[in-house]
Amino acid sequence: MTDTDTRLAVDGARLWASIMETARIGATARGGLNRLTLSDEDRRVRDWFCRACEQAGCTVTVDALGNIFARRRGRDDTLPPIAIGSHLDTQPQGGKYDGVIGVLAGLEVLRTLDALDHQTNAPIEVINWTNQEGSRFAPAMLASGVFAGVFDARYAYDRRDRDGRRFEDELVRIGYKGEAACGDRRLGAHFELHIEEGPILEAERRTIGIVTGVQGMRWYEVTVEGRDSHAGSTPMPMRRDALQAAARMFIAIGDVARAHGPYGVATVGMVECHPNSRNVVPGSVFFTIDLRHPEEDVLADMEAEVVWALRQAAGSLDMTFERVWNSPPVRFDEECVAAVRQAAAAHGYPSRDIVSGGGHDSAYIARVAPTTMIFVPCKDGLSHNEAEQVLQAHVVAGANVLLRAVLETDRRLRAG
Amino acid sequence: MTDTDTRLAVDGARLWASIMETARIGATARGGLNRLTLSDEDRRVRDWFCRACEQAGCTVTVDALGNIFARRRGRDDTLPPIAIGSHLDTQPQGGKYDGVIGVLAGLEVLRTLDALDHQTNAPIEVINWTNQEGSRFAPAMLASGVFAGVFDARYAYDRRDRDGRRFEDELVRIGYKGEAACGDRRLGAHFELHIEEGPILEAERRTIGIVTGVQGMRWYEVTVEGRDSHAGSTPMPMRRDALQAAARMFIAIGDVARAHGPYGVATVGMVECHPNSRNVVPGSVFFTIDLRHPEEDVLADMEAEVVWALRQAAGSLDMTFERVWNSPPVRFDEECVAAVRQAAAAHGYPSRDIVSGGGHDSAYIARVAPTTMIFVPCKDGLSHNEAEQVLQAHVVAGANVLLRAVLETDRRLRAG
Repeated sequence: MTDTDTRLAVDGARLWASIMETARIGATARGGLNRLTLSDEDRRVRDWFCRACEQAGCTVTVDALGNIFARRRGRDDTLPPIAIGSHLDTQPQGGKYDGVIGVLAGLEVLRTLDALDHQTNAPIEVINWTNQEGSRFAPAMLASGVFAGVFDARYAYDRRDRDGRRFEDELVRIGYKGEAACGDRRLGAHFELHIEEGPILEAERRTIGIVTGVQGMRWYEVTVEGRDSHAGSTPMPMRRDALQAAARMFIAIGDVARAHGPYGVATVGMVECHPNSRNVVPGSVFFTIDLRHPEEDVLADMEAEVVWALRQAAGSLDMTFERVWNSPPVRFDEECVAAVRQAAAAHGYPSRDIVSGGGHDSAYIARVAPTTMIFVPCKDGLSHNEAEQVLQAHVVAGANVLLRAVLETDRRLRAG
Repeated sequence: MTDTDTRLAVDGARLWASIMETARIGATARGGLNRLTLSDEDRRVRDWFCRACEQAGCTVTVDALGNIFARRRGRDDTLPPIAIGSHLDTQPQGGKYDGVIGVLAGLEVLRTLDALDHQTNAPIEVINWTNQEGSRFAPAMLASGVFAGVFDARYAYDRRDRDGRRFEDELVRIGYKGEAACGDRRLGAHFELHIEEGPILEAERRTIGIVTGVQGMRWYEVTVEGRDSHAGSTPMPMRRDALQAAARMFIAIGDVARAHGPYGVATVGMVECHPNSRNVVPGSVFFTIDLRHPEEDVLADMEAEVVWALRQAAGSLDMTFERVWNSPPVRFDEECVAAVRQAAAAHGYPSRDIVSGGGHDSAYIARVAPTTMIFVPCKDGLSHNEAEQVLQAHVVAGANVLLRAVLETDRRLRAG
């Protein structure tokens, strides 16, 4: 078998059928999924996945955080496995593809290798990471975080949902608290196929996004304090209108991001105006800022420019500015990225390098294993939404790239 | 007695004592008042007021809306009375002066005339208008509105508070549903002393505001529709960020008002951002606009300019714009205004013409009787707030102007 082997492609119809079959578990009336972490629906899709992997001849292991590892033996089973991971849990009003295609494309890779009767040198493991979404138990990417040493297991176990139920109790309840310690296994590499959750690939008509890393992200909270006063009897020059100052800030924040294009982005997503009454000049405004850029230095520059612009926009009003979260950029493994690039080229798929704007399990796994991701377009860049749509051809293309990149990595590791 | 009669002044200490005495009825811990319309506290202050007026020799009449008319006989009791009216009800966390000083200055005028043994030609009536504030039963200025024919009595009776209690039932409960039909009495003139509820007089160190009218006011509701998208994976040029467009609108609205200074004012007081999540580009924003100007033509121009500016700021985003309220400007009676101006000059009080930014009972009464108002400064322009503060000297000056303006009007009406 060579790179140009025409048989080196997954069975697209089978892959799509798996996606549609699992999409019945937690299906919503409007065509989406509600499959919250550690819910009964999560248990049912896990059961489905374990059975499918066992039928494909895999050994299934569950670790203490409920992460599922389905292992297909390699020629040298002492080598660390090449992993294909993503998540089967969804948002409460999520789509059918976010996370799901990454796990099921992994399963399809296993089935394809069986059909081709191809034995890899290293074992292949398909992984379902627990609680990527974080909608039920915050924070997101909890179990991949524990795996990578970002959180400890005790912290994860004690997370509670809105009804007060503990993560660990729910893990036991659905029967997915395994014996193996979480993080106690070395991975030779980790690949993740995912929808882009953004509009770039669709707009440029690229089938494959070669993901070179994850943006750095910083969150801020800002409060502008003016003075609330009567909307009728306070002349414009005598006002201390917190919303007018905040509006200048919103625009300045957008300007900072545009000045650091094309990668810099900045979002004011949440605004609270006080007292929020039609006939009262706003006395104070609270808002949030989300700043992202793939490079730490640029992100620091953007922060400094935002602070400067806000102070200028505040004028004589008081302002508090606080950084509440800092997630440094992740740069994916060069050889894994090269393997994806080569695979996309081998298939002739239109592709481009892209930086992930959102968080993924791969961002944490990159700390402990050579990692990268493959993106495919989603309609209008929409995700976390029941209306999420992905073309079958794009999912199949992504799975083909995944298959080739995994095999290329297997070859390279053996050669190395 | 002449205009320059040095005795022509109220008893400031007595007036202040009345204000402080009634301020015990519904007093809040933080120095304000909670005396909602038709509450037990409202009944107590009404009882106090009726008794004080009767002790001053007045005849007290209550109409079917609970408006109280305390009448001091004139030489010619067939003439329509010269009225002095305002309100004793307050906001739930209101101050001690808003409305109250207008009624109690009226009482002080009666007492002063008694002390001077001065008989006016026309009768003088001091009026407490029911439900000026509208905090418990919307809308505001309900009973003066019925008196002026803006609302009918049935409409007023059926207003309900948040607990579902009807206006009429509460009026009966506190014993203030009178026999006289509301609006069934002609007034020769109507004067109202009130705090400015704005910062202009204080900033210019003027003791008296000669109120020439009430601004026209228009309210609007605007919705900007973009598309919510992922804050990390949506590049700036591909966003349809409703908040960025709204921010441009907020600034443009302020610019329109400033271009129509010094009287034009515009306020964006209420903002709702959707989905209002830190890491989601806002898909839609709802906000309100309050536009005011003393002249109808200019207000219409301001509206047209705002519409134009909003459409420009919206760019490719969708926008809905709806006018939800239109309150035309009120121009007060020229002779009443002249009487106030002359009275302020006679006392040598620093004064200026001013247009009321807020609504007052006088705005409705102006439809059925020659009317004007007298403003006195309040600290920092603050009202509708327990921290409302007014200098005793300013209230006394206002009452002195009121007394002289009433007597001047009495003289003029007799002469005419």
